[in-house]
This record gives sequence, structure tokens and C-alpha cells, in this order.
Amino acid sequence: MEGLENRLKRAGVDGLMLVSDSIHDANMFYLTNFLMPDPFIYIRKDNSEFIIVSRMEFRRAKKESKIRDVRSTDEYGMLDLLKKHKDVQKARLELLKDVLNKEGIKRIAVPMNFSFFIASELNDFEILPVRLLEDLREVKTKAEIKSIKSAQQACESAMQVAIDAIRKADINKDVLNLTSEDVKVIIEHDLINKGCRADDIIVASGKQSSDPHCSGSGALEINTSIVIDIFPYLKKERYHADMTRTVLRGSPTKETEEMYQTVLDAQNIAISNIRAGVTGKEIHVAVCDLFQERGYDFIHSTGHGVGLDVHEGPSLAENGDKLKAGNVITVEPGLYDPEIAGVRLEDLVLVTAKGCKNLTRFQKQLVI
Amino acid sequence: MEGLENRLKRAGVDGLMLVSDSIHDANMFYLTNFLMPDPFIYIRKDNSEFIIVSRMEFRRAKKESKIRDVRSTDEYGMLDLLKKHKDVQKARLELLKDVLNKEGIKRIAVPMNFSFFIASELNDFEILPVRLLEDLREVKTKAEIKSIKSAQQACESAMQVAIDAIRKADINKDVLNLTSEDVKVIIEHDLINKGCRADDIIVASGKQSSDPHCSGSGALEINTSIVIDIFPYLKKERYHADMTRTVLRGSPTKETEEMYQTVLDAQNIAISNIRAGVTGKEIHVAVCDLFQERGYDFIHSTGHGVGLDVHEGPSLAENGDKLKAGNVITVEPGLYDPEIAGVRLEDLVLVTAKGCKNLTRFQKQLVI
Repeated sequence: MEGLENRLKRAGVDGLMLVSDSIHDANMFYLTNFLMPDPFIYIRKDNSEFIIVSRMEFRRAKKESKIRDVRSTDEYGMLDLLKKHKDVQKARLELLKDVLNKEGIKRIAVPMNFSFFIASELNDFEILPVRLLEDLREVKTKAEIKSIKSAQQACESAMQVAIDAIRKADINKDVLNLTSEDVKVIIEHDLINKGCRADDIIVASGKQSSDPHCSGSGALEINTSIVIDIFPYLKKERYHADMTRTVLRGSPTKETEEMYQTVLDAQNIAISNIRAGVTGKEIHVAVCDLFQERGYDFIHSTGHGVGLDVHEGPSLAENGDKLKAGNVITVEPGLYDPEIAGVRLEDLVLVTAKGCKNLTRFQKQLVI
Repeated sequence: MEGLENRLKRAGVDGLMLVSDSIHDANMFYLTNFLMPDPFIYIRKDNSEFIIVSRMEFRRAKKESKIRDVRSTDEYGMLDLLKKHKDVQKARLELLKDVLNKEGIKRIAVPMNFSFFIASELNDFEILPVRLLEDLREVKTKAEIKSIKSAQQACESAMQVAIDAIRKADINKDVLNLTSEDVKVIIEHDLINKGCRADDIIVASGKQSSDPHCSGSGALEINTSIVIDIFPYLKKERYHADMTRTVLRGSPTKETEEMYQTVLDAQNIAISNIRAGVTGKEIHVAVCDLFQERGYDFIHSTGHGVGLDVHEGPSLAENGDKLKAGNVITVEPGLYDPEIAGVRLEDLVLVTAKGCKNLTRFQKQLVI
């Protein structure tokens, strides 16, 4: 990982340190490829790197991690430290100090989410929070793009079964004989069959859909928007996809039709403007301008990076920096009227030197 | 939440601050009951508390969060800050300083996992990492216990379908016509139907099962252990359960039978010793002693707390403190022979004044 070494040199540090689990902390999984529910230690010094895991995880780490130098906390006398301190945190801190001293590390970079508690206890060392892994993660490798494409395929399959269920559902007065919860379960079953999983899913109709992150509950309404937002990840590779469609059973109002067309136009403008070198801000402003022209207000950003985290950089928003080839970002304009409903369309695109490649093939059609 | 107020007083601070999302950070969900994929701010001062969320999340936070005082970043001029700094982190930091100043907060407690980056930028304030929420979370309320019981029911239902599938599977030479992956998918489908989800599942046979956290892959072996460890959480309430069973198709070796009996005896000893006031260390030592007596070595802890996180306090281990009534802990002795297989049995118990209540009803039977 050449990028990392150069960046550490530029930061003028002796190394890089992480202390976290790798289920919650994508940085740790990114570096180690080792899925671990409890905190462990990653150290990089010059171009060598090692991890320190508990005795119990040692053999598995040897097998599953991409780090060749796997060490056990036993090598650093963890059991004696536990007996001495009778406190796992104190024992871990002494172990960490011991490791840094043995490696001759004085000044070390840590990621932005590094624990304040640990840093504040390492008084003899200079700890520098550096936005480094987060930056690296924004530009995807071929293997990462392949994983994201696989997740996206699963996402589209699940979207299809969801929309099929909505299309076929009986109408019972002014609602479908089908709830948000039903559709979410249908989606989850399909994702599981495709090797994916979702931490959450949005299936929200009518006024519920006017709240962009409302998960949705109860019977789905007719003649109004149903927003379906699916953002699964591959169980093994841990990479996400992200897609939203808005559909409707029955007859749309003029307002909903206009909102849908405006969102679609905004998405097309955004996608046609995306290429390496353009800023996320420029893309976002183009969407905001179109919405304003047509009398609407935009309450969220136009998009975000997708990878090991479903929300990561770069951002298509007021603070959006220059896009780079290899960024994988969502393009998800949306309009929300609290009195009516919401409309959102979200595609996932890969930024290239000359434009972008839309990784999303799923059709966009309001009335189903 | 009286406990929290008193603890903050004892720590001599003006308040408590969290800045994180509530999907990865259980402390944030514990305080707010608001599920949010992006970072937001929680502040407690004396006995009042408020959260600050983005404009987009404002209405949803009002509806879904248990916090009454919900504020929007708009109230603190976030859009202008973003335009000024062109950097979302700098803008957030200035907003945070503004909030603390307006509240007259100088000295503030933060949880142990608070970001070093944020803390190091708040130079004008005294930031104290305090183990406080983690302690509170260890003693469960009635509502929390109810949620854990629901998750446990789902866990047992999934265990049953998994074991049924293994029992019914055809034998193909020395393996089952069924893979670890098949069983995990069967488990996931059942969990989803019960309103649960699992971040990971272990179904590992033979030598794979001798690595306690090996997730398992490939055809399941006969005449050897199959370890099934399921730790799902309720999608809505977010509370976990945790249970492990070891089963076997065919004929066990004498070694496996002896390991199974020893693990079962160890679990019974541990459970019979658990009550409020006993230390986690005492329970763990009793298990270690039995294992040693019978010539085995124990490579992990005897148990851990379960709640919003699947691994939380208290710990049944070398560093285990006094147990309290209301702790919900796993009791999961296991033995692992890299040349043969592993055996683990895990129940979930509620610590009471006089003993413990086993929340697990699922049978323990090696040969199926």
C-alpha cells in the first residue's frame, strides 16, 4: 500500500496505530481484512506492519488476516498484566506502551476516530490524528469496485422482488394489503440469498416518505410515493451498495409527477457533470440550482462515497472537494413535501477521468 | 436517569457530551433511542439533555428519539459555517465550541470511545473520558431484559431450525450434504422472520470449530463437533441475545464426549455460583480449575455482558469485577483441540440477588 507509506512520511511520523475492533471500524478492516468483534492493535512502522490479537484469536488471525506478522498479546505478557492491574483497560494500555517502546516509536499517526481515552493515557508519545485512511479509502481499487458491483447486483435483485411484491399486492380501500415491514422482510430474505445483509432498509409511503431517513411502517398507501432505499453489504467482503427508487400504485397527483420529473432531471444533470477534477460542491450546486429554478428546496446532500462504510467520502455537498477517478459515489437528489410525500432516486456511479460509469442498471419508473 | 446525574456530579463535571452516530455507537443509542447513521451531538447539563441533528434528520428525531429537546444544526448556523470553512469537520468543531460556550460548559465528561481528534481540537475545554455509560448499561432495566428475552426467543427458534436441518441432512461419504454457509443462511432467514438480524453467525465443524471465532465454511463433517453460535439483535430495539450449542451427526469419539461432558460440568458449576456480589473472576477461576483438574487448558473468558452490544460488561474473566443484580451475561465455557475440534456451550443468564435466572431454555444434546 504505497499511498499509505508516502502519506505517513509526509506527516513526519514514526508509524500508524489503530486500536479498535473491525466490525464497527471500517479503517481496521481495510488495513487487516480481519473481521474481529473485539479491539485489537494494528501498528505500521516504515513499510512493515503487524497486528496484536488475543491468544484466542491468534490462529484465526494467522489464517484470515492479510497481515503476515500476527502477534499474540501473550508475547507481551498480557496475562501477567491482567493479574497486576485487575483491569483490562489498564493492562491493555501498559501493553500498548510496551509495544511502542519496543518498536522505538515516539511520534505516531492515528485515524480521526482514535479513542481519546487511549490517546490521553499515552503521555510519553506524540499522537497525531490524521485523515489518511479515510482519504485512501475514497479511491477504490479494482477488487473493491468488483465487490461493490456484486453488492449492487444483490441490491438490484432485492429491489426487483420488492417492487414485484408491491405491484402484485391487492388494494384494500386506500392502502395496499402489504406493509412496509412486509416489504423490508422480503428484501432481507433476497439479500441473504445473495450473500448480502442490510443494517437497515427504507420502505416508506405517503407522508412517511417525506422524511428522508424514515424507515417506514404500516400499510403502504396508494396514489402516493413509496420510497425504497436499499444499502446492503456483502457478508464476506463487507463492501456496500446503495440504491433508491420511488414507485407508486394507482394514480399520481400532478405534484408527485412534477417532483418525480424534477428529481430525475436533477439526477441526470448531476451524472452528466461528474468526472475527475470537478468538485462535489459543483455537482451539488447544479442540483440545488435546478430545484430552485423549479420552486423547490433541497434538504440533504446530493451524494456520498460508498465502500466499507455506507456513508464515506467524498461528499457531493456544500463542502465537496475535487472528485478523483476511482471514487464510488451515490447520486441521490430528493424532494420532500411534509404535506404530500417524498421522491428520491439514487444511483451508484464510478468516477472516471472523463466522466462516470453508472453501476446501477435498475429502471426508473414511477407508476407500477 | 438518576444514576447518570449522580455519576456526573461525582465526576465533578458540568455535563456529558457525545458526538457519534448511533448505529456503531451503542452509548449514543442508549441515551437517545434514535437510530442515526451519521454523527450527531448529545449534550447533558444538570438534569436536562438535548441533541443536535442535521436539518434533514430534525423531524424524524422529534418523532423517534426519546430526547424532548431536539435542535437542528441550522439553529447554530451550520450552513454558513460550511461555507466559511469548506470543511465539514472544521464546521462541526466550530459549532460544537459554540454550543458548549452557549451552555456555559467548561469541564465535560465524554465516554471512553470519544474521538481523540475532536477532543484535541477543543482546547478551551476540559474533556474527561469517564467509564460511565458503559457501567450504567451493565445493569439492565425491566424493558431491556424484556427485549433481550425476545431476542433470545428468536435465537432459540433459529437454533432449532439449524439443528433440524443438520439432523435431516443426507450423509455423503464423511461429510453432510449441507455446508456451514447453508446453515447460516437458514438461520438468517429464520431470524428475519422473527424481527431479528445477526451481524455474524458461527457454524463450524471439525478442526474449524477448534478456533472459537472461526465462522465456518464448506461441507459439515460427521463424527465430530459442529459448533453453532448465534448472537442476533432485535432490529427495532437493538438488544442482542447470544447462545451456542455443539452438536454432532454420527458417532462421537471418546475425546469429544469427554470434552462435551467437561464443558457441560463447567457451565453448571459457573451457573450455580453466579449471584450478585460474586466476582466475575471467581466464576472464571472455578471454570479454569475444573478444566485444569481434568487436564484441559481454557483459552478464552467464561462470559461477557450482552445488551446493545453483543460484547459488553461485566466480564467473567481474570479481570472480572463484582456482579450486580440486573447484569445479563453469557456463560460459555469451551474447549478447543486444534487436532480434533472444539466444544462450546453458551447460555444467557440474568444475575439476581440470590443467584441467576437462566434465560436460555434450549436443550443441550451432543449427538443428534
